[in-house]
Amino acid sequence: MTQFNDTELTAAVIKSFEQTPNSRARFLLQELVKSLHDYVRKTDLSFEEWDTAIGFLTRTGQKCTDIRQEFILLSDVLGVSMLVDAVNHRDRDGATETTVLGPFYVGEHKVTPHGSDISADLSGERMFVQSRVTDLGGKPLAGVPVDVWHADQDGFYDSQRPSYATDGPSSRARFVTDADGRFHFRTIVPCSYPIPTDGPVGQMIMQTNRHPMRPAHVHFLVNARGYEPLITHVFVEGDKYIDSDVVFGVKDELIAKVEKRTDPVMPDGKPADGPWHLMTYEFHVKPGGGLAPAPLGTKATEDA
Amino acid sequence: MTQFNDTELTAAVIKSFEQTPNSRARFLLQELVKSLHDYVRKTDLSFEEWDTAIGFLTRTGQKCTDIRQEFILLSDVLGVSMLVDAVNHRDRDGATETTVLGPFYVGEHKVTPHGSDISADLSGERMFVQSRVTDLGGKPLAGVPVDVWHADQDGFYDSQRPSYATDGPSSRARFVTDADGRFHFRTIVPCSYPIPTDGPVGQMIMQTNRHPMRPAHVHFLVNARGYEPLITHVFVEGDKYIDSDVVFGVKDELIAKVEKRTDPVMPDGKPADGPWHLMTYEFHVKPGGGLAPAPLGTKATEDA
Repeated sequence: MTQFNDTELTAAVIKSFEQTPNSRARFLLQELVKSLHDYVRKTDLSFEEWDTAIGFLTRTGQKCTDIRQEFILLSDVLGVSMLVDAVNHRDRDGATETTVLGPFYVGEHKVTPHGSDISADLSGERMFVQSRVTDLGGKPLAGVPVDVWHADQDGFYDSQRPSYATDGPSSRARFVTDADGRFHFRTIVPCSYPIPTDGPVGQMIMQTNRHPMRPAHVHFLVNARGYEPLITHVFVEGDKYIDSDVVFGVKDELIAKVEKRTDPVMPDGKPADGPWHLMTYEFHVKPGGGLAPAPLGTKATEDA
Repeated sequence: MTQFNDTELTAAVIKSFEQTPNSRARFLLQELVKSLHDYVRKTDLSFEEWDTAIGFLTRTGQKCTDIRQEFILLSDVLGVSMLVDAVNHRDRDGATETTVLGPFYVGEHKVTPHGSDISADLSGERMFVQSRVTDLGGKPLAGVPVDVWHADQDGFYDSQRPSYATDGPSSRARFVTDADGRFHFRTIVPCSYPIPTDGPVGQMIMQTNRHPMRPAHVHFLVNARGYEPLITHVFVEGDKYIDSDVVFGVKDELIAKVEKRTDPVMPDGKPADGPWHLMTYEFHVKPGGGLAPAPLGTKATEDA
């Protein structure tokens, strides 16, 4: 048959994938065809709209670099990332809630001594972060690498700054838990910030009258051997955008009170240089495997 | 509300687009969210699969250049392009059938005198193409620009060759119809060819055990003022792949018998240098407006 009406066409495309060797890939592709075709039929998509979509997807791909992932950002603002998170984490069994990875995990995390100030070069209110990693029974887990990253006082990640190439990471580090499962570090209090609006995804958000803001948070990636990698944030309680995160990433359990302190010493006994804030958060991980996400740049361009 | 179960999440994302000023854009985005979320839920998409999709889309965008459009190719092999074509051309009223634009319309078409050999530099069996453009009542339309392009004897378009930048177009031209609505030109008989398999889309086709072939055809874009732009191909009858075009683009009415001839002169009275083929096809266009597609490179990178 060479000529199709529109339902015959859909059937023909689904059939064309019948010889896909991997049955899961076959299922995913055939469902994708159904879903895309249903969308075109339901919306009676015009050529101009199709052309706009092609242009948008092209620009989204072309905005990606080794240190920026515009397609993850698109997935994030459409709630797809959080939905993938939800369907893969239906039973937490007491483990810490997960949230989006976000587009700024660049895999440049260097093991850093406990207590270090990872934002020493930044202005902003100082914060001491103390944390612990345990299993579901509360047993501390030692030797666990924990990647940490957050935006600076202007709402930018280090990798968004032109100086990143020369100056290297800032507000971004890896800590390894001690025998008691603990780690601690100094940094600044993060602030709420807009997703990048200089690319197609941010522009779409502005054009649709959504605000582009994320509430203040610190990213954590807890990667204990023999446990599910835990990708999450800790959000700062009271942030103006806590109820309207542009990527739908907030969960109640992940909101931490960040307390203002005036004690002359911080919890590790070292002197505080003025008022400071304390963030305390414990992570509980569940048994399992799986790889932590690959850093950007190692996959997106693998056969480009 | 900060925490969503998966259906609340979908509702929240749909609601986030409520303030989109353009009602059609709002509808398209909200339906897109529903469709994407239904897909994730139905397939229980894993993180690894999501990650594979992000990487695939990124590479697809990054494969696009001013002269290559990998996202159009993706739309083509998933049957989306032909479906958009179908839903926008439900009533032909006798107008010539349409098919996909394809990824090789580069908008470099130079007005060329009738009778020119547009593949003079190529080996291959010679073909004389004679054609006419009329309205639905058969009235000839004069002064209509008709863009023509096809693959060479190895199955490549000029723009796929490294020499394109220096040598310019080949097997690609624009003819303007004469007072009788006619135009004619010389070229080679096109052959069936694979879509490019050096990019993510072609690789996906190979990995799913689909063949990557398109049956032999010549592209035509007939762009008469006051009429619907007609984007179509004429296919060569008898091609091995006529029933299994990788982009689902064949329609019965678009198949032409290409006759072998041994007459010593061609239809324009000029001598034939050995045996040749004759392709005859008439295009009928319907009243309407709309812009012809923009050439590649003018849109895909507009704000990249």
